[in-house]
Amino acid sequence: MEAIFFPRTVALVGASDNSKKLGFDVLNSLKNGEYKGKIFPINPRKREIMGLKAYPSLRQTPEAIDLAVIVVPASMVLEVIRECVEVKVRGVVLISGGFKEIENDLGAQLQSEIANLADGAGIPVIGPNTFGILNRKIGLNASFSLELSGVKGGNVGLLTQSGGMAHIITYLSMSSNLGLGKIMGLGNRCNIDFPQAISYLMEDADTKVIGVYLEGIDNPRLLIDVAKKHRGRKPIVIYKSGQSKRSEKAALSHTGSLAGRHEIYVGGFCQAGMLWVDSTEELIDTLKVLNFLPLPQDGTAVIVSGQGGPAITSSDVCEKMGLTLAPFNPSTQDMINGVLPPLTMRSNPLDLGPSWNNVESLKSILRIVLEDRYISAVLLIIVYGPANRHFIRELSGLLMEWKTRKPVVSCFSYPSEKWAKDIEDLEDACALVNYPTPERAARAISNLWKYQKIKMGVLSH
Amino acid sequence: MEAIFFPRTVALVGASDNSKKLGFDVLNSLKNGEYKGKIFPINPRKREIMGLKAYPSLRQTPEAIDLAVIVVPASMVLEVIRECVEVKVRGVVLISGGFKEIENDLGAQLQSEIANLADGAGIPVIGPNTFGILNRKIGLNASFSLELSGVKGGNVGLLTQSGGMAHIITYLSMSSNLGLGKIMGLGNRCNIDFPQAISYLMEDADTKVIGVYLEGIDNPRLLIDVAKKHRGRKPIVIYKSGQSKRSEKAALSHTGSLAGRHEIYVGGFCQAGMLWVDSTEELIDTLKVLNFLPLPQDGTAVIVSGQGGPAITSSDVCEKMGLTLAPFNPSTQDMINGVLPPLTMRSNPLDLGPSWNNVESLKSILRIVLEDRYISAVLLIIVYGPANRHFIRELSGLLMEWKTRKPVVSCFSYPSEKWAKDIEDLEDACALVNYPTPERAARAISNLWKYQKIKMGVLSH
Repeated sequence: MEAIFFPRTVALVGASDNSKKLGFDVLNSLKNGEYKGKIFPINPRKREIMGLKAYPSLRQTPEAIDLAVIVVPASMVLEVIRECVEVKVRGVVLISGGFKEIENDLGAQLQSEIANLADGAGIPVIGPNTFGILNRKIGLNASFSLELSGVKGGNVGLLTQSGGMAHIITYLSMSSNLGLGKIMGLGNRCNIDFPQAISYLMEDADTKVIGVYLEGIDNPRLLIDVAKKHRGRKPIVIYKSGQSKRSEKAALSHTGSLAGRHEIYVGGFCQAGMLWVDSTEELIDTLKVLNFLPLPQDGTAVIVSGQGGPAITSSDVCEKMGLTLAPFNPSTQDMINGVLPPLTMRSNPLDLGPSWNNVESLKSILRIVLEDRYISAVLLIIVYGPANRHFIRELSGLLMEWKTRKPVVSCFSYPSEKWAKDIEDLEDACALVNYPTPERAARAISNLWKYQKIKMGVLSH
Repeated sequence: MEAIFFPRTVALVGASDNSKKLGFDVLNSLKNGEYKGKIFPINPRKREIMGLKAYPSLRQTPEAIDLAVIVVPASMVLEVIRECVEVKVRGVVLISGGFKEIENDLGAQLQSEIANLADGAGIPVIGPNTFGILNRKIGLNASFSLELSGVKGGNVGLLTQSGGMAHIITYLSMSSNLGLGKIMGLGNRCNIDFPQAISYLMEDADTKVIGVYLEGIDNPRLLIDVAKKHRGRKPIVIYKSGQSKRSEKAALSHTGSLAGRHEIYVGGFCQAGMLWVDSTEELIDTLKVLNFLPLPQDGTAVIVSGQGGPAITSSDVCEKMGLTLAPFNPSTQDMINGVLPPLTMRSNPLDLGPSWNNVESLKSILRIVLEDRYISAVLLIIVYGPANRHFIRELSGLLMEWKTRKPVVSCFSYPSEKWAKDIEDLEDACALVNYPTPERAARAISNLWKYQKIKMGVLSH
């Protein structure tokens, strides 16, 4: 797989200068990223494409090929794979569709012939029927979407069974300040299926957190075994769709896989230590918190809020998701009472009340709860107003001091761009992770604790 | 209440030119909106504040006062209310805190004295302990947050028991292209409580949809009766927090109201025809769909998607929430088969598959399902790619043609700003409503159908 994600040479079989063809889009993505390796367009009818010298076949390239990206029609793919074997290509990304996902058996048969050939030669094949793969670390975009190169580089590895979902997740990562590292569209999973891909990302030094979107696989047992083997090593956050009869049927025709048996998946995946989420948004929110923040030592969190309402809505979510908002221990309570006047809600959740616009009070409270070793996570809620517009900058020293030691999840709510840059800086420094609503912040910090429980072996669902 | 939301004259009791005081912030909000009425700052120690002539008391203003906004300390409020009665002020927004929400009984007692005085004189009092109120229609911002004036004007009326939540909801409305009309922070609810406020908005010609954030009220029966009385007239979308013991306790100290009895609320509110939602985000998403789109005639929807994955994730949500994705009737199916090649998923959910980048196919499919009278709602999912970057513009004619006739909810997913403007234009024209994830789009269209069921009297929970 290393040849697929860190190739020194890439051949694009089916490269085209016709902007209506996939071979054009993929070459565009390869060429217009920051990828520094060599790119060889393969097209028997062209001598040059997009300013690059083209070659009639894989046999004629001047250098050995690490990665062959294939976009020719299904009927020609078998022949190209034979060439790959012959010239000892080290890895393949097979973008072409028309295999197991189509309604007649020929597609499935063709796919199994390709798998046999590739398996025999020990060539990993991602696809067919995929948008491709990216490795942001080296600026490699071997997909038909140049736009995907717009996502920040980072340490989240994303595996998906759907190109559409991969795009949606990547676009949302862009607006959520979440950096991705490797993005893989597994498509029909010829010989690289979820278990193989997860094994690879577990060993990959650039990947810290693994995000999975899955519709259905033929052999869930294998995936469960791999997840179990690596349990607690790196988080695997899994979002599985196809929960209803109708969508199950849709999933079958979409990537040629049996979805179904939804309950079996839920039970098995959770027991194997995968962190189960229920929506695209929860997937991204959870990847983000796991990517940026340290794990809480135990399940005792505190909510510090400038206002009562969001303190209450976030409490609801924490309690529902198993995060404990315990009363303060007496010495902490004494210190808090020394800072806040009696009119405020000085318990947990804590509401600054009339002191919401007093940055010194907020800083004192924040320091008290960060220093309290009986509190293992902090949820901080601040709503923008004229009186607190400099708060984030004024808190940033304290937050930076505690980064990597105790997780701080925030809901800083603000109009338009006001705080966007300050928050992005703090996130990039791993000092906190921010969400637009109190409930999403609460869900994220609860999932952070859930993963710690998985790691400690005390959570199996 | 008309005097509060459409005042010709506003007096601000406690106006200040000290930027650390609330009286400064409120005057700033009043002055720097588009409000065209007259503003009279009241402050016995000033002759002029922010360029406006100041008056020592309500007794000295040159004109009768429609709305008095009060920000003086709690101890002085009773005296100001007496003045209001004396000079026949027509409505009061009492921003000051220190009443029923504080820990000792004096606050509650003071509040009840104020209520008695105001009730006796027939003066509606919003607050105390509120951030204030806005009426975007006339540019009136009688709150301490100038920022709230940044939200678009519109036909959603927002009632909240928490200033923090009102701010969060308003800020999110700004980034969600949702226009608000009247915003009310009910605070401790002196003599304007949720039932009175809802009755007012039901009669208010500018309000189409009512959004409610509630923590707890002393007399839920009264609210249930008002909602029942108006059932099906205008949607009331309700988000109630304080579901757990701890947050219930927090709610009690926050706005001095008994939360609790959560199950009683759920049952009663739903039976009264209020649309129950579970988070800030669902509240905004649901207000948005109800604000912009017509109701579906029945519960049969179709999902049209460029990709399989998001078609499946949105199907899951629709089915969970009671929206039916029925098979196409034979003539519709024939027409669809005439447009799409056999390789695609031509059932419901429909996946364009290899035709995802063919705008003519998409237009034909969209026209077929819009014209099918057995389909009453459309969920359209398009993921941005180089090949479809002009799609939204190319679809807009058809969407405009069908606006107000059949609801179209979309998930157009795109990187950064690409489609933002095109989508905003279509939303403002009521031609569709867009959401960033397929699940949120599916939840919104399901809630639209839920409200139609409430209206038809077939849903009581």
